[in-house]
Amino acid sequence: MNMIDIITRKKAGAALSRDEIRCFARGAADGSLPDYQLAALLMAICLKGMDARETADLTLEMLHTGDVADLSAIPGVKVDKHSTGGVGDTTTLILAPLVAACGVPVAKMSGRGLGHTGGTLDKLESIPGLSVEKTVAELIDQVRRIGVAVIGQTGTLAPADKALYALRDVTGTVDSLPLIASSIMSKKLACGADAIVLDVKCGSGAIMHTVEDAKALARAMVEIGRLCHKPVSALVTGMDQPLGTHVGNALEVKDAVDVLSGRTGGDLLTVSLMLGSKMLLLAGAARTREEAEARLREALDSGRGLEKFRQMIEAQHGDPHVVDDLSLLPQPKVKRLVKCGRAGYVQAMETTVLGLAAQAMGAGRVRKSDVLDWSVGFILPVRIGDQVDADTPLCELWARSEDSADKAEAAVRAAVRIGEGRCERPPLWFAEL
Amino acid sequence: MNMIDIITRKKAGAALSRDEIRCFARGAADGSLPDYQLAALLMAICLKGMDARETADLTLEMLHTGDVADLSAIPGVKVDKHSTGGVGDTTTLILAPLVAACGVPVAKMSGRGLGHTGGTLDKLESIPGLSVEKTVAELIDQVRRIGVAVIGQTGTLAPADKALYALRDVTGTVDSLPLIASSIMSKKLACGADAIVLDVKCGSGAIMHTVEDAKALARAMVEIGRLCHKPVSALVTGMDQPLGTHVGNALEVKDAVDVLSGRTGGDLLTVSLMLGSKMLLLAGAARTREEAEARLREALDSGRGLEKFRQMIEAQHGDPHVVDDLSLLPQPKVKRLVKCGRAGYVQAMETTVLGLAAQAMGAGRVRKSDVLDWSVGFILPVRIGDQVDADTPLCELWARSEDSADKAEAAVRAAVRIGEGRCERPPLWFAEL
Repeated sequence: MNMIDIITRKKAGAALSRDEIRCFARGAADGSLPDYQLAALLMAICLKGMDARETADLTLEMLHTGDVADLSAIPGVKVDKHSTGGVGDTTTLILAPLVAACGVPVAKMSGRGLGHTGGTLDKLESIPGLSVEKTVAELIDQVRRIGVAVIGQTGTLAPADKALYALRDVTGTVDSLPLIASSIMSKKLACGADAIVLDVKCGSGAIMHTVEDAKALARAMVEIGRLCHKPVSALVTGMDQPLGTHVGNALEVKDAVDVLSGRTGGDLLTVSLMLGSKMLLLAGAARTREEAEARLREALDSGRGLEKFRQMIEAQHGDPHVVDDLSLLPQPKVKRLVKCGRAGYVQAMETTVLGLAAQAMGAGRVRKSDVLDWSVGFILPVRIGDQVDADTPLCELWARSEDSADKAEAAVRAAVRIGEGRCERPPLWFAEL
Repeated sequence: MNMIDIITRKKAGAALSRDEIRCFARGAADGSLPDYQLAALLMAICLKGMDARETADLTLEMLHTGDVADLSAIPGVKVDKHSTGGVGDTTTLILAPLVAACGVPVAKMSGRGLGHTGGTLDKLESIPGLSVEKTVAELIDQVRRIGVAVIGQTGTLAPADKALYALRDVTGTVDSLPLIASSIMSKKLACGADAIVLDVKCGSGAIMHTVEDAKALARAMVEIGRLCHKPVSALVTGMDQPLGTHVGNALEVKDAVDVLSGRTGGDLLTVSLMLGSKMLLLAGAARTREEAEARLREALDSGRGLEKFRQMIEAQHGDPHVVDDLSLLPQPKVKRLVKCGRAGYVQAMETTVLGLAAQAMGAGRVRKSDVLDWSVGFILPVRIGDQVDADTPLCELWARSEDSADKAEAAVRAAVRIGEGRCERPPLWFAEL
């Protein structure tokens, strides 16, 4: 099979065969195809697209260049959940214990923070002592014992995707729906779950800025699931502001514990329950949305969810007392309360800017080798649509220095637009597939 | 200037600025830009195009990555001629001496054979002793003395084009009009002529198979000339069969000498006169086509054209007696006459197959390092539209072995279609710009 022929066919708008897709996915994974040919093909795919069958084939071929976790030793239907990435998006820390508390096994492999978005592993590691480095055997063992585990990805997941993603990043070929969809799904399928719930974010803090684009991505991924015979459902949810009020690693653990303790709720809880319900439905642990949500609510209200979180922390060598005493989480050198400074309505937020501000404070990595400061970030109690006056708290900065707090204060002020016009609260979700 | 931004802009269909084009042309020439970024950009250009201004900018930026010959020491208007490549296309060997015999200086840098098409330098080198390796100073000196020189390209011509062409070849991005046009024109402008006549071939033996594609390429190159303030005119001529009856290096020298001696004429002479007329017009050596053609005819009929060819051969250390005794040219081991074998009409030729047959005989290089056999090739007296019978000569093979002649015979038989239906002679030219 000749790579130039494959490129030429895609350039002419043809649909590639499974064999052709296998050829370039394997060549990307094992390095046998030169980057320049892959780059030309990626650009042709960006501009000519791929149909659903090609996208599913690409997903499976990238998947099969690497390891696929075998979770069959865990009884029951294992449902995974994946978010396309947002700011203050701590749903995993809430729904993993809640879903497990409803008797559905949660064996989850998560990722690290990327760019302006946080990562579940980094948040968990802010809990003193907690380890996310486990083998698949240890993952299985933990889930069999306590019903839940969230660990780092093990083995070599979809190396073709890794190679192609690195190349897309430097060749202006990131924003292609079939490439984004197959990249996400190949890695997700490699984690070995029986079914997957996708949270596709849309808005100023998401990869997909418009509802239409987010819906198209959700549809593409659900379709990949259908063609790969894997039950997949999706929610398209808003990311025009941070989902939770807390942004930062230890801060988001605190937010999750506050929610699991019933102390706070808000959008973070609402979206966690929506996603959790879909997980129960896919696992066959409820017949209707109402039944699923009632079971999750019961797990929350009874404290079984929080208890499950405590068990998970303990099983992963973390200090379980943090769920009772949040001051055991890493604390920052500087805490600063910032006020709105003017009266009006919160009209909009540049959510990516907020995420980058947290990253700059030390909550995220600019370079892969950067060491995180788990303690830093900010609490942003205001929501779009809120009426504020000059003395209303805008945010509470948790910083490692006054200088860092100064910069973060300027960034948050610039990112949150307060104006005179009254403003609607943005929808929390847009579509369900 | 960021290469990813440039790629992203072209991907979105934007016109690139002169600065952006300079950035990637220089990066291609000096190797500072990675191949994969150039490959992605080339694919985006293939699929999104370039407007006339961008194409002219690319031409000039590629041109200026290398040397540009300075021919100003030669008095008069120096007109160059370029063919996009064909089979049996020996016009340069005829019109260079004829135009020079009309008092217009011809200082020409030519190329070698490529794929199925022959190269002027290879043909000239089949003349015993002749050298095409000259410096620009020697070129200028020879043209000042005798009015004509045809040599190999000297210096580093458009290295950006060289790098981009090599990459296009392996990334399926060859067939883009602005890339083809700017590639040809950057190299041609580097040769330093004051004006250029282009012979854009179209048909089964040309890069451009359809008249529309060939016209579009001609228009694009004439437009580059206009935007670069360089007089350029173009003819679109047919390549549905070899232009001359001889294919091969020494054989095409023989064909040229036969034409310059007045022994033969045909399509090769007609096209040579058309192109030569355009050269005289651009040089200001004639006011009308008729006047130009009359001057060329006079140079031909008087023998001054042949005499000029003899002078050129001598000036380039070749044996000038070949023009009087063609048996001094390299002779093959095997000559074989092949007959048509059936009655009918010559309906079509796969001209690329004919060119590849000559290449396989040893007249062209499959690998860059191949050593040519100047003696081999074939004479194909039949033309499309001819009525033949079984005994009509189809071709005379000049081969280096019986085995090679067997293969060439099969190839020529397969490439020349003889059928029952009467058939029109194809047009010799299609458009003039």
